[in-house]
Amino acid sequence: MKGKVYLVGAGPGDPELLTVRALRLLQSAEAVLYDDLVSPEILSLIPFTAEQHNVGKRCGRKSVQQEEVNFLMIALAETGRQVIRLKSGDPLIFGRAGEEIEALRKAGIACEVVPGITSALGAAAAARIPLTHRRVASSVVLLTAQQASGSKAAEWEKLVASGSTLVIYMPGRNYGEIRSKLRSAGLLEETPCALISRATTPRQRIHRTRIGELHHTPHLDSPMLLVVGEVVRLADSSVLDGLSLSSMVGDGNMVSDAVAVGLGDEEALA
Amino acid sequence: MKGKVYLVGAGPGDPELLTVRALRLLQSAEAVLYDDLVSPEILSLIPFTAEQHNVGKRCGRKSVQQEEVNFLMIALAETGRQVIRLKSGDPLIFGRAGEEIEALRKAGIACEVVPGITSALGAAAAARIPLTHRRVASSVVLLTAQQASGSKAAEWEKLVASGSTLVIYMPGRNYGEIRSKLRSAGLLEETPCALISRATTPRQRIHRTRIGELHHTPHLDSPMLLVVGEVVRLADSSVLDGLSLSSMVGDGNMVSDAVAVGLGDEEALA
Repeated sequence: MKGKVYLVGAGPGDPELLTVRALRLLQSAEAVLYDDLVSPEILSLIPFTAEQHNVGKRCGRKSVQQEEVNFLMIALAETGRQVIRLKSGDPLIFGRAGEEIEALRKAGIACEVVPGITSALGAAAAARIPLTHRRVASSVVLLTAQQASGSKAAEWEKLVASGSTLVIYMPGRNYGEIRSKLRSAGLLEETPCALISRATTPRQRIHRTRIGELHHTPHLDSPMLLVVGEVVRLADSSVLDGLSLSSMVGDGNMVSDAVAVGLGDEEALA
Repeated sequence: MKGKVYLVGAGPGDPELLTVRALRLLQSAEAVLYDDLVSPEILSLIPFTAEQHNVGKRCGRKSVQQEEVNFLMIALAETGRQVIRLKSGDPLIFGRAGEEIEALRKAGIACEVVPGITSALGAAAAARIPLTHRRVASSVVLLTAQQASGSKAAEWEKLVASGSTLVIYMPGRNYGEIRSKLRSAGLLEETPCALISRATTPRQRIHRTRIGELHHTPHLDSPMLLVVGEVVRLADSSVLDGLSLSSMVGDGNMVSDAVAVGLGDEEALA
């Protein structure tokens, strides 16, 4: 009898932010294929009896191609094993789960998708940034930095023009380049943004700045993402990287004040 | 000593999709303030010893104002209780958590945000719709139907023009109106879409159609959302409402074929 593949979201990093279902599945796994961005704390929950494969693409070694991942996943399921395909965040957001679901369907292998806390939500919770807000932003876009180049640049301009909060996954390490792309897409130098690294883990760092100063920001480790938009002013100063930014969003200020307020201390930050 | 408030995401409905942290907090809660959209299965996990308050806005009775929710939450925390503010989905996406965090900060009450599986991800997992896909859509927008009217209409046009997958929360019951709004924003009649009601619960319903036929779609119960975009063609036919739509995305078709294929059976659906 063929096994089954569970495409499971591992969430942003904290094992407590696994779903109850993901935890149960992980603890009874027979085989696990995981990506590099899954946190060590979560990997430690996999039973030692389970066959484990790192199919990540950032190990310094030759990339594992998507086709190879599909092949291994199917081969393991065909031996009758319950296979967990573990992805950081949520499988259906920048996770290529669509391609894996198709491959499984083609191979006649049953599958189930177990959603996870996507990185944007983990990062927002860590920094206490409301991604939408009645008076500030009425929509939020999840995108990757690649979109800012080539034929995708026009799409990005439209997203910027919509006034949505932007959450940029995998912004890359060249902050100067990201700054240029954001400026080209129509964002002002003053637009607040936050770099959030390893959200929800003990190694979490949150750095709030503005587009114009992004290239002066210290380098943070991946997984990292960039939140851009007026809602970033509402971030909780107490959780930001070792800096008191209370003059930016003064304790007790209501949103309307907070949003009207200038960047204050922030400018001395870069 | 003052208590603490936990702004907790309840996820889309299935108690197994609570995070481990949310489940732990809920099971040891001293007071819980919850919204109407939190599923009965999740509410049943609250210990009977906990003080419970439905602060939802859809009970047929006079709405509970945001200020009243803030007041109650703060009053309970000031008596030293550990208060859970339970919201369906994720607190920072259309959940007004931003306003509640501000009110708590002003009152000097400690708070923590526990992210949840936002409805878009629960619905996508249920229908197996990849919200992003390398060859189909490189970004996803989360928005509400209100944005399509008044001064927000221009913003919506830009979001549509960006080519992102759209996930519309609270699309309302007037499907004809939604159809008009989507058409006005620039979407074609042929654009595929899916209405997903009570995702991840035993009462889940998934109905795939296209913009031009949206007003002929049967009424589904809330919580409900609408996913719009080419990725909807990739939804798993086996999970759709009692209809075999395999000719739309034939088993074994690769994405490129699936996307090129017409709506097939779907047109006979309305």
